[in-house]
Amino acid sequence: MTLRKTLMVSAAATLLPTLVLAQDAAAPTFDEIGPYILTTLLFLVAGFLVFFMAAGFAMLEAGLVRSKNVAMQLTKNIALFGIASIAYWAIGFNLMYPGDAWSIAGWLGPFFAITTLEPVGLAAADASLDYASVASDFFFQLMFVAATASIVSGALAERIKLWPFLAFVAILTGVLYPISGSWQWGGGWLSEAGFSDFAGSTVVHSVGGWAALAGAIVLGPRIGKYKDGKTIPMPGSNLALATLGMFILWLGWFGFNGGSQLAAGTVGDITDIGRIFANTNMAAASGAVVALAVTQIMYKKADLTMVLNGALAGLVSITAEPLAPTLFGALLTGAVGGVIVVITVPLLDKFKIDDVVGAIPVHLIAGIWGTLAVGFYTGNFGAQILGIIAYGAFTFFASLVIWYILKMVVGIRVSEEAEINGLDMSELGMEAYPEFSRG
Amino acid sequence: MTLRKTLMVSAAATLLPTLVLAQDAAAPTFDEIGPYILTTLLFLVAGFLVFFMAAGFAMLEAGLVRSKNVAMQLTKNIALFGIASIAYWAIGFNLMYPGDAWSIAGWLGPFFAITTLEPVGLAAADASLDYASVASDFFFQLMFVAATASIVSGALAERIKLWPFLAFVAILTGVLYPISGSWQWGGGWLSEAGFSDFAGSTVVHSVGGWAALAGAIVLGPRIGKYKDGKTIPMPGSNLALATLGMFILWLGWFGFNGGSQLAAGTVGDITDIGRIFANTNMAAASGAVVALAVTQIMYKKADLTMVLNGALAGLVSITAEPLAPTLFGALLTGAVGGVIVVITVPLLDKFKIDDVVGAIPVHLIAGIWGTLAVGFYTGNFGAQILGIIAYGAFTFFASLVIWYILKMVVGIRVSEEAEINGLDMSELGMEAYPEFSRG
Amino acid sequence: MTLRKTLMVSAAATLLPTLVLAQDAAAPTFDEIGPYILTTLLFLVAGFLVFFMAAGFAMLEAGLVRSKNVAMQLTKNIALFGIASIAYWAIGFNLMYPGDAWSIAGWLGPFFAITTLEPVGLAAADASLDYASVASDFFFQLMFVAATASIVSGALAERIKLWPFLAFVAILTGVLYPISGSWQWGGGWLSEAGFSDFAGSTVVHSVGGWAALAGAIVLGPRIGKYKDGKTIPMPGSNLALATLGMFILWLGWFGFNGGSQLAAGTVGDITDIGRIFANTNMAAASGAVVALAVTQIMYKKADLTMVLNGALAGLVSITAEPLAPTLFGALLTGAVGGVIVVITVPLLDKFKIDDVVGAIPVHLIAGIWGTLAVGFYTGNFGAQILGIIAYGAFTFFASLVIWYILKMVVGIRVSEEAEINGLDMSELGMEAYPEFSRG
Repeated sequence: MTLRKTLMVSAAATLLPTLVLAQDAAAPTFDEIGPYILTTLLFLVAGFLVFFMAAGFAMLEAGLVRSKNVAMQLTKNIALFGIASIAYWAIGFNLMYPGDAWSIAGWLGPFFAITTLEPVGLAAADASLDYASVASDFFFQLMFVAATASIVSGALAERIKLWPFLAFVAILTGVLYPISGSWQWGGGWLSEAGFSDFAGSTVVHSVGGWAALAGAIVLGPRIGKYKDGKTIPMPGSNLALATLGMFILWLGWFGFNGGSQLAAGTVGDITDIGRIFANTNMAAASGAVVALAVTQIMYKKADLTMVLNGALAGLVSITAEPLAPTLFGALLTGAVGGVIVVITVPLLDKFKIDDVVGAIPVHLIAGIWGTLAVGFYTGNFGAQILGIIAYGAFTFFASLVIWYILKMVVGIRVSEEAEINGLDMSELGMEAYPEFSRG
Repeated sequence: MTLRKTLMVSAAATLLPTLVLAQDAAAPTFDEIGPYILTTLLFLVAGFLVFFMAAGFAMLEAGLVRSKNVAMQLTKNIALFGIASIAYWAIGFNLMYPGDAWSIAGWLGPFFAITTLEPVGLAAADASLDYASVASDFFFQLMFVAATASIVSGALAERIKLWPFLAFVAILTGVLYPISGSWQWGGGWLSEAGFSDFAGSTVVHSVGGWAALAGAIVLGPRIGKYKDGKTIPMPGSNLALATLGMFILWLGWFGFNGGSQLAAGTVGDITDIGRIFANTNMAAASGAVVALAVTQIMYKKADLTMVLNGALAGLVSITAEPLAPTLFGALLTGAVGGVIVVITVPLLDKFKIDDVVGAIPVHLIAGIWGTLAVGFYTGNFGAQILGIIAYGAFTFFASLVIWYILKMVVGIRVSEEAEINGLDMSELGMEAYPEFSRG
Repeated sequence: MTLRKTLMVSAAATLLPTLVLAQDAAAPTFDEIGPYILTTLLFLVAGFLVFFMAAGFAMLEAGLVRSKNVAMQLTKNIALFGIASIAYWAIGFNLMYPGDAWSIAGWLGPFFAITTLEPVGLAAADASLDYASVASDFFFQLMFVAATASIVSGALAERIKLWPFLAFVAILTGVLYPISGSWQWGGGWLSEAGFSDFAGSTVVHSVGGWAALAGAIVLGPRIGKYKDGKTIPMPGSNLALATLGMFILWLGWFGFNGGSQLAAGTVGDITDIGRIFANTNMAAASGAVVALAVTQIMYKKADLTMVLNGALAGLVSITAEPLAPTLFGALLTGAVGGVIVVITVPLLDKFKIDDVVGAIPVHLIAGIWGTLAVGFYTGNFGAQILGIIAYGAFTFFASLVIWYILKMVVGIRVSEEAEINGLDMSELGMEAYPEFSRG
């Protein structure tokens, strides 16, 4: 046996003299602790998969902006993740799950809490054996709020100032998302009204999309995007990077949807997770294939960025209910998502709403579709519509107000000169690809 | 306890009134259900790792083609994964595992089935407790067939038409691979003849290689590749991307080989998986190092693309038997793979077979070597040779026929002009790197 | 049930006639084998995450060097991983954990051992049920030594010769790291002296940093880096790639720190791993945010490369003790790491130590900080300082000697012409981005 373990155990004993090692206590049986261990493991594995979606969003967005804005887009994506991690710990998590016993101790007042974790070396007797470790749950939930913020950064790329954007992120991840998330996942009024959203087509993706839409309206389109009634294409600088981002997001989605089963310690739960994985994959596959086919038919040319967004729209669509559908149901759900993207991307341009990466069609519109589709399984379309409206109204108007305040107080848009020269040189003083000349 | 769980449980109860939660039933013990849960978990984790190989192939191939064909190569890699997901669900899985009880219900006739999954909230009493969840197994197996198709796309890059290629993929993943896979993994005649292929050096990799070889012959080399008896180098446009692809494939291979243990719930099985991980890593490491050393010796210069393919050849070589070898055995197996790549890449050029990314040396030739090497452990070289010939003959000739039919009926090659201008502009109307001028 | 399993079981039976399947023996209960299975699973999952850090380092370093050296940097990163895999198997692992029973059989003499794994199909009665599979442990530990070597490659980029670098890697991973690692994790004198380093801020990261520092001194700065008392910026060629590398490293770090719990089969252990994941994420997040804020304040511009290194410094800082801190403690620990990077990167330039990617600030200096900070939890700052000095003195001077010998005997630096033209063309005869002209 390697001694590293021995050492660690004794080091732990040194560090924490009060720790009673679990195996020393009246040893609980695996029938008692197995589900807790496995569900905690689920949150950790699913959590690191969803974490990796931060890289996926960063690559997707960096690939879809022009090269003069790539370094800034990367900076925003790392910073928003950092801010979200801190804001969700300081305020968000406890705001979202207010009934949680463990959070009480951390409250410093009604609007500021600090998430605390279980003690080191938790004894089985002190654990929530019917659920999972708080730390693992916090870790998992945190990754969802970070995804929400990533959606916003893509839509508003190439013109928004760094720090006002990060200020919005802090409010979104610390306050807005937790409040509205609480309505459904915190056991609030929407969950009581029968609204159902398994992994967050609405709670996560549409919320991100609404916040992005409000921002895009307040911010206005990029210079030169709409000219003489025409939409001027501004192609992404690196489609290989964007494709990598899409694949990373697809990978992370297995954690996003699979982890949302929130239990892995019974035959029923682990089998359900298998079902969720298969359905999630099928929806992404059909979203991609359908977007490919539709662009070929409509425009006589396949379109890679539509395929990327088609896969993502398929994923968003299945997120509200990845468990109940058959594989054929998942295929249909994803296919509609693929169609939605191809149709709504040009539609947004009609309204001169400049969404750089297509985040609003993918996350908001496909999110609405996926949430509506749950009605086929619950039979309660009314509750689904109620939820969609409630999340939309709250997130859109709250975001609108915050964006306006930021605009008035500090300004949210870079100068015209900075935008034309690119945010990388003007805001960061560096280039993402300094040696590659522009064609 | 976070309320999201509570909500989910009650939502599930609403959705599925007939669901009896496992813990409510005469609770099965972990001794009964532990192996099922752990093997299902193995398939899910290994499955997402193998899924990610789709990104690995996409990055490897996008990095090894010229920049004018990058967007098309990415499009093909996403689309083939989508097509494979659908074809394997609609036809392939049930064709490959025909004895499976669960598939019967889905059959619509002798050549068209639809894979169905277990019901939501499966009770332990209804589960195959000696194996794993069907959904997780389907998810895992599906990723293998997608890998097969990815092999083909690399070899035929830079000149094949999108839609005929995807038509071939549908047949390969829906019919060809499942039929021949069934001979071995479906309990067919080759498994009865003593042929052994643990994770698919032949069943997956050589099959992909044979299909690619047939395609390369029918399609012909790229314009200008072979001129006046010389091979003109056409270097890949982005070796950083190609290297990333190789690393992702290496990562995914732990799932590919480790998951093929097909069980994780006993001391013997989990220990074996550890052995497989260590051996898989060793074979890749030695394949890379040996390819580096051999190119240095032979050409006086190290060669990065050979190192990439050396690592991959090491991985393919160990795939037929990653469990039985010692670490030293794995080192030798991978080393031979590394040598094979360095020797056979120029050999293919002698025959004017234009394999853009080196897929045939890596997957077909190293696959044959790996399959042969199993004979050292089983003592039955005859069965190994029989299997190699059977898979080769069937896949090569069936592919040849299909490629010829596609060539005759719709044509499989883009026009000369399109090829020279690049498939990105001619077929997609977009560029992968629109701002970076060509050197 | 899919027949692949049936086949595999019978194939295994054919291959290994002496194997008695575990379930046939007097079946051990999950209470007996559960912890072994789960800890083995932990090593496999954490191990593949740490493996992926090899890709992270490769992308980070390839993105931070100039385009004329990218292919060489990639080659070095793959080759060093291969060499590390072989050297740690042949010598390192047994040198580091000398008391391990399994290694005795492999010894060929006092300085050369060969790591052997458990037999295939290990019976529960023969397993170390209080720990995990040797193979999984070897796999996990191997990934740590590879990380150490990756740190060196970044600092010495753009001027070191390939083969002498790889010779150093072989000694570092086969001998130096195992010897010093043994002091702490092999149950040696430092662990007895009360030194504590949970996952390797010192044992792994500072060791890599010391080896890099010695190399940077012997090797000297790049041509033109320091001119007339000024530091000439040589910006990285691809910050998108570098950002991807950072995200991959962040992902891998969950395995690095989480796996170092070395046990996952009790409520206490799995809960601790959750704590480690949450703390690790928090330290990275605060390192990134603080580096961003500090560069904005100090230089009036945000700096992406500082943000990347800030996140990494946060991760290195928390690595010595990711378990004991609260989330707020982790935030502070990471924040200091972020400050360290911003301050020490220009400091190194003052001493004309040319560290291309910032590896020394990130891994050495933040590693020292993280190791010191453990004193707040153990109360034993003396032991921490002792450990820091011991590792520093041994690794720095041993490395210095080896670098000097290599310099004398074979030379470690490419010719001036080769350096100016780039290592890619001069040493490899290829370019990473052959079609993109330099700006």
